Amino acid sequence: MAANFHKIINDPVYGFITIDDELISQIIAHPHYQRLRRISQMAMAHLVYPGAVHSRLHHSLGAYHLMRWALQELTGKGVDITPEEQQAAKIAILLHDIGHGPFSHALEHVLAEHLHHEELSLMLIRDLNHTFNGRLQMAIDIFTNKYPKKFLHQLISGQLDVDRMDYLTRDSFFTGVIEGAVAYDRIIKMLVVKDGVLMVEEKGIYSIEKFLVARRLMYWQVYLHKTVLAAEQMLQRIIKRAKHIHAACAEPLNSFINQPIAEVTLDQFCSMDDNDVMMAIKQWCHHPDIVLSTLCKGILDRKLLKVKYFSEEIPESLIKEKSDATKKAFGLSEDDVQWLVYTGVAASSTYNFENEHIQILFKDGNVKDISTVDNALINENLKGKVKKHYICFPQ
Amino acid sequence: MAANFHKIINDPVYGFITIDDELISQIIAHPHYQRLRRISQMAMAHLVYPGAVHSRLHHSLGAYHLMRWALQELTGKGVDITPEEQQAAKIAILLHDIGHGPFSHALEHVLAEHLHHEELSLMLIRDLNHTFNGRLQMAIDIFTNKYPKKFLHQLISGQLDVDRMDYLTRDSFFTGVIEGAVAYDRIIKMLVVKDGVLMVEEKGIYSIEKFLVARRLMYWQVYLHKTVLAAEQMLQRIIKRAKHIHAACAEPLNSFINQPIAEVTLDQFCSMDDNDVMMAIKQWCHHPDIVLSTLCKGILDRKLLKVKYFSEEIPESLIKEKSDATKKAFGLSEDDVQWLVYTGVAASSTYNFENEHIQILFKDGNVKDISTVDNALINENLKGKVKKHYICFPQ
Amino acid sequence: MAANFHKIINDPVYGFITIDDELISQIIAHPHYQRLRRISQMAMAHLVYPGAVHSRLHHSLGAYHLMRWALQELTGKGVDITPEEQQAAKIAILLHDIGHGPFSHALEHVLAEHLHHEELSLMLIRDLNHTFNGRLQMAIDIFTNKYPKKFLHQLISGQLDVDRMDYLTRDSFFTGVIEGAVAYDRIIKMLVVKDGVLMVEEKGIYSIEKFLVARRLMYWQVYLHKTVLAAEQMLQRIIKRAKHIHAACAEPLNSFINQPIAEVTLDQFCSMDDNDVMMAIKQWCHHPDIVLSTLCKGILDRKLLKVKYFSEEIPESLIKEKSDATKKAFGLSEDDVQWLVYTGVAASSTYNFENEHIQILFKDGNVKDISTVDNALINENLKGKVKKHYICFPQ
Amino acid sequence: MAANFHKIINDPVYGFITIDDELISQIIAHPHYQRLRRISQMAMAHLVYPGAVHSRLHHSLGAYHLMRWALQELTGKGVDITPEEQQAAKIAILLHDIGHGPFSHALEHVLAEHLHHEELSLMLIRDLNHTFNGRLQMAIDIFTNKYPKKFLHQLISGQLDVDRMDYLTRDSFFTGVIEGAVAYDRIIKMLVVKDGVLMVEEKGIYSIEKFLVARRLMYWQVYLHKTVLAAEQMLQRIIKRAKHIHAACAEPLNSFINQPIAEVTLDQFCSMDDNDVMMAIKQWCHHPDIVLSTLCKGILDRKLLKVKYFSEEIPESLIKEKSDATKKAFGLSEDDVQWLVYTGVAASSTYNFENEHIQILFKDGNVKDISTVDNALINENLKGKVKKHYICFPQ
Repeated sequence: MAANFHKIINDPVYGFITIDDELISQIIAHPHYQRLRRISQMAMAHLVYPGAVHSRLHHSLGAYHLMRWALQELTGKGVDITPEEQQAAKIAILLHDIGHGPFSHALEHVLAEHLHHEELSLMLIRDLNHTFNGRLQMAIDIFTNKYPKKFLHQLISGQLDVDRMDYLTRDSFFTGVIEGAVAYDRIIKMLVVKDGVLMVEEKGIYSIEKFLVARRLMYWQVYLHKTVLAAEQMLQRIIKRAKHIHAACAEPLNSFINQPIAEVTLDQFCSMDDNDVMMAIKQWCHHPDIVLSTLCKGILDRKLLKVKYFSEEIPESLIKEKSDATKKAFGLSEDDVQWLVYTGVAASSTYNFENEHIQILFKDGNVKDISTVDNALINENLKGKVKKHYICFPQ
Repeated sequence: MAANFHKIINDPVYGFITIDDELISQIIAHPHYQRLRRISQMAMAHLVYPGAVHSRLHHSLGAYHLMRWALQELTGKGVDITPEEQQAAKIAILLHDIGHGPFSHALEHVLAEHLHHEELSLMLIRDLNHTFNGRLQMAIDIFTNKYPKKFLHQLISGQLDVDRMDYLTRDSFFTGVIEGAVAYDRIIKMLVVKDGVLMVEEKGIYSIEKFLVARRLMYWQVYLHKTVLAAEQMLQRIIKRAKHIHAACAEPLNSFINQPIAEVTLDQFCSMDDNDVMMAIKQWCHHPDIVLSTLCKGILDRKLLKVKYFSEEIPESLIKEKSDATKKAFGLSEDDVQWLVYTGVAASSTYNFENEHIQILFKDGNVKDISTVDNALINENLKGKVKKHYICFPQ
Repeated sequence: MAANFHKIINDPVYGFITIDDELISQIIAHPHYQRLRRISQMAMAHLVYPGAVHSRLHHSLGAYHLMRWALQELTGKGVDITPEEQQAAKIAILLHDIGHGPFSHALEHVLAEHLHHEELSLMLIRDLNHTFNGRLQMAIDIFTNKYPKKFLHQLISGQLDVDRMDYLTRDSFFTGVIEGAVAYDRIIKMLVVKDGVLMVEEKGIYSIEKFLVARRLMYWQVYLHKTVLAAEQMLQRIIKRAKHIHAACAEPLNSFINQPIAEVTLDQFCSMDDNDVMMAIKQWCHHPDIVLSTLCKGILDRKLLKVKYFSEEIPESLIKEKSDATKKAFGLSEDDVQWLVYTGVAASSTYNFENEHIQILFKDGNVKDISTVDNALINENLKGKVKKHYICFPQ
Repeated sequence: MAANFHKIINDPVYGFITIDDELISQIIAHPHYQRLRRISQMAMAHLVYPGAVHSRLHHSLGAYHLMRWALQELTGKGVDITPEEQQAAKIAILLHDIGHGPFSHALEHVLAEHLHHEELSLMLIRDLNHTFNGRLQMAIDIFTNKYPKKFLHQLISGQLDVDRMDYLTRDSFFTGVIEGAVAYDRIIKMLVVKDGVLMVEEKGIYSIEKFLVARRLMYWQVYLHKTVLAAEQMLQRIIKRAKHIHAACAEPLNSFINQPIAEVTLDQFCSMDDNDVMMAIKQWCHHPDIVLSTLCKGILDRKLLKVKYFSEEIPESLIKEKSDATKKAFGLSEDDVQWLVYTGVAASSTYNFENEHIQILFKDGNVKDISTVDNALINENLKGKVKKHYICFPQ
């Protein structure tokens, strides 16, 4: 670590983000990382929330900033974290999303089928580790949860990780849905480590409740907003339809559309970003396939499919009614109409009782899961996933 | 209403508050209203949250601002509200707290026993109505819920009134507990009137949930914060002890301490504010009664009693232990020690299922109480009051 | 205007933007307007300020919001503005930037040479006027300053127009350079019209000074920031070099690069956005022309030319030194090296004394230009343009 | 310094203020310091800006927070500051205002004539030093500028001290005059020490300009606002008149009114706060002296004298006109009327060219005063004091 290396980046969310480690600065300067400037964080959410155009680079810088702060607070409380571990944890969070492709989650599993973005992130981090002569090994160990101090991994991926804290805060900021803001500063100040596990001090309980309710709100008001859902569904169907009918476009996207995924290289993946998909969409607006061109023009000119949410399964009669009308209006076959009229299920869980836990450390040394404390807001109601059924169809 | 009458007041919470009605401007200029500058909104909360020193005048101006906005939104949606009704509703909210005495809620029922601040408000509004030649009559009818358009009263006093919206927003702002902030702007935009009743549009559900959770948080983190509770308990006991031992102080407070409440005049009430109580406390620091002087010095120098919260009744053994220690340390009798060592119950309900309702208006015209909608956050858990037992004792 | 037409859009800057006019809603829904989603407001500024990725659509919605508010305030003060004029002024500001092409100002006059974006805006507004059966005529008259009530044009284009107020506020917000924020709310509340001219009330003087100083700061700290300047210079040189060497790319950009501008159609212009330029840049990274590929890789991977500012002309010796080094490092000819090593002048004026004026209306009815009031901050120093000379060269 | 001592205080301005030093915690808990809770920061400004009710305790905690941060930044840049010096600098700023009496500046030199608040602060700090067994000696040396590292004193008292940064920020926050906000975070990050002197990095120039312009705005828009000036003038005249006619009130204020200042003790000074003055004002509302009772009722009921600003000396004819009208209306003598009708001069300097300097450190190592850099905003115009003449008289 170079002494006195010091750069600051303006961030409207946190004020200033400090980079005071030369290796981290070099990683940020690498083309793999710079590519994240061209990957939008929230895919099509900007069609409803015009401010939501921030990039995945910005989010991962923000998560890095919170990690840096959390590590400072924890070491300030006497938790033993060496400078090397701090550097590694910061690198791990900086790179946690580096495997995202065009439009992030919206096209995950669609463009590169069978590949989760975390696997791609790992492949790319290993690639960078090679470039930087093995200096990223500890970051890889933390990222893959092989490092003994488990709380470092929990800070990257867990119920209270800095990833979630940043994306909720940042997405709330850029959408203007201020109700989604979380008290990241208070939560970070309440973090403690006991027996190697990340916990929250007793007096942070209400902040955690607020965090979980904010997340619930962000899901239904933003991420699963009807119009956002419609647009992201359309985006997915554009790629799927293009694969289905073998529509051509410029490289490297063309390889992802028209070749088996096994033949595509990591380099090709890394040379692709939102621009490639948008350009294909612009060209396919004039494609002879009516399904593809309709979907593409829909995204381009914001003429989106209509979405209706139901608390129960969509009635067959409604599906038939919409299908018939669409077949007629667009002159589509029974097979093809299902690309424009379809149903699905949107789901969100506020707190997962099975797999994840937020541990509260009481003043007397006791530890309880937040779902079992007295007067808990987070119990009966928030158990299990909330599901909503939806139907999409042309207006 | 004078044409073009127009004044603006800077408010750090909302930016600018506009006064565009001459009668309202005259009411604000009246000494009864100006007295509210000297009544703090949050009593002793500033001992924990140093920013919480805002006045009740500021709060009632804020509530007026939200009322003005809510009326604009509702008329914009076609709800029939005449200019006279608008003026009356604005006057009613402006004056809703005018009956508060020194330190507001903290000394309510203690200084002027048996008198609720709303009764005192009504007495003072009637007094002003006399001064302004009966021009406040419609405001009185709305305030007392005798006016036919019930939703106007609901805006002043109900689950979603502008009073609550302002005090949560403002108290959150001045304490710096940003998690208590509510999306007043969004909620106001979601208000509708159906069948004369105030309701919230379906798409405002998550904002309402957030509002109720914010309120829950503000109660436990601020209003019932251990140290705030201790200080406000001490303040009450100062007045009670002074009455008990007939401690003298300057007028008009002396009359409230040493005369039957029936003999005290409304004028005397109106000439009293926080300064009177603070001056008495400063003088009583040197009072020979050890209980009174201890409590007074405690408030003045912020040497507060210690509070412990328990989820169950306080064990007798603990009370005895603390009483014995205090008797010894202060040389107090069995009777007097109970002024410094005592137990009580703090309670807060997020949503009152019996008396109050937040109605949600669905797009299809259906109306449901928020506690009965699908996937409601607000049901099982938030039913009934949350109680915490506490004990206070000298440190 | 349809009764009760009402839509709200979340905006992180102003909270909510209200659309309550069906014609305006239809204009926003038009593909010409939706295209502005794909034109970034600040071109390459995001390479320094990662949050600065907001779109020109967002800015023009914001300017519309301020116009709506300013009209409300002025009519509230008794200025005569008919509903038709209000609608027209709102349409004019909504569309004032519709003629911007890819990367807005950064590529203005470079892609479509000899065409100012305001001329293109006017062409497109006329096109829309045709589509909407002449309902935009009054908006055109205001836009072109042919409408008798000159203050309406001043609100769109003048020293204190809502365009500037929005872009300073918005660019400050998204960059996180909070010092560039202007008190748009206070300024709007201080606007008055006298003798048909837009003025500012006396008590708004300090806000205006602050506005001009904020603008000065935004120019030097953001718009003309060394690194932003370097990147935007590189962007321009990419297009110019591509024209120079007839580099091919996809349509419609190819026509703008390789055809006389006279042969390009408005439709082609409208089908082009930032994506087209970015895709060409990505492809040209592999172009055999070393100048073009160097510039393109520089933008893509953020390997920017270095910029140095000087208060006087750049010394010839420095230019020669950098040119020689670059010729050697890149193997370039004397002609070609000037594409990578070059000098220029950056300029900003805070207040233009010749052409523009901010009139202050005093309480006694007098009117003075802000540069002539007592104790003016805005006089000697801010007269004339501030110029800085710069040199760009490879690091 | 106790290991792991750690307390946080919520502050709406900065989020959280951390106290991590036991001595500092004990100083804050001392009655001398707690008294500052009852001294308002902005005296009568709340009569115009209702939010401006924050206390001097809150301001000094805020200044402490900025000092803590500035010391962190400077040590992070390699400036040598020992832990003892850090503690001392933090104590010095924490106590810099401890000598303020009721209503701070508004009654300085009026209540305790001939005593500047900094002398009183020093007396009280020495008193505390005695209590804390000499542990405040280094703080005293820094406060009195006898400590060799001069930049520590500059942080407490200089053109860019944390005192100014906090009061501008805080007063702007609580008044809602957001234009007065300064970029304290950016300025602190730009501070450097060269040759023992505090300087600002070159890239901070625009932030400094903005800081000086914000200060100028705060003076004229807030501190010297006509109505605020009127109210504070009245407050001063109340005390002066009470001294003049030997009006009685409760102790300890009575001693300050009716005894030679030499006979008053420091203890008496410390037992006095805003409440004492307000109670006297309330009682004097009924005083037989018409001048005193008029001024007191004016403050209590916000019936203030009217103020008019002039750029030149007030015409004698106007003074005579107002004096005659007032004599008649109030039945006052020629002598007494001068207590209600009087003239004065309000002055503010943005940047003092003679005594104070803001040094800019350029990248090449050169140092220049900000008033001499190229294109400086801060030169001709801001030289010397800006003066406005005013006249006060009953409405």
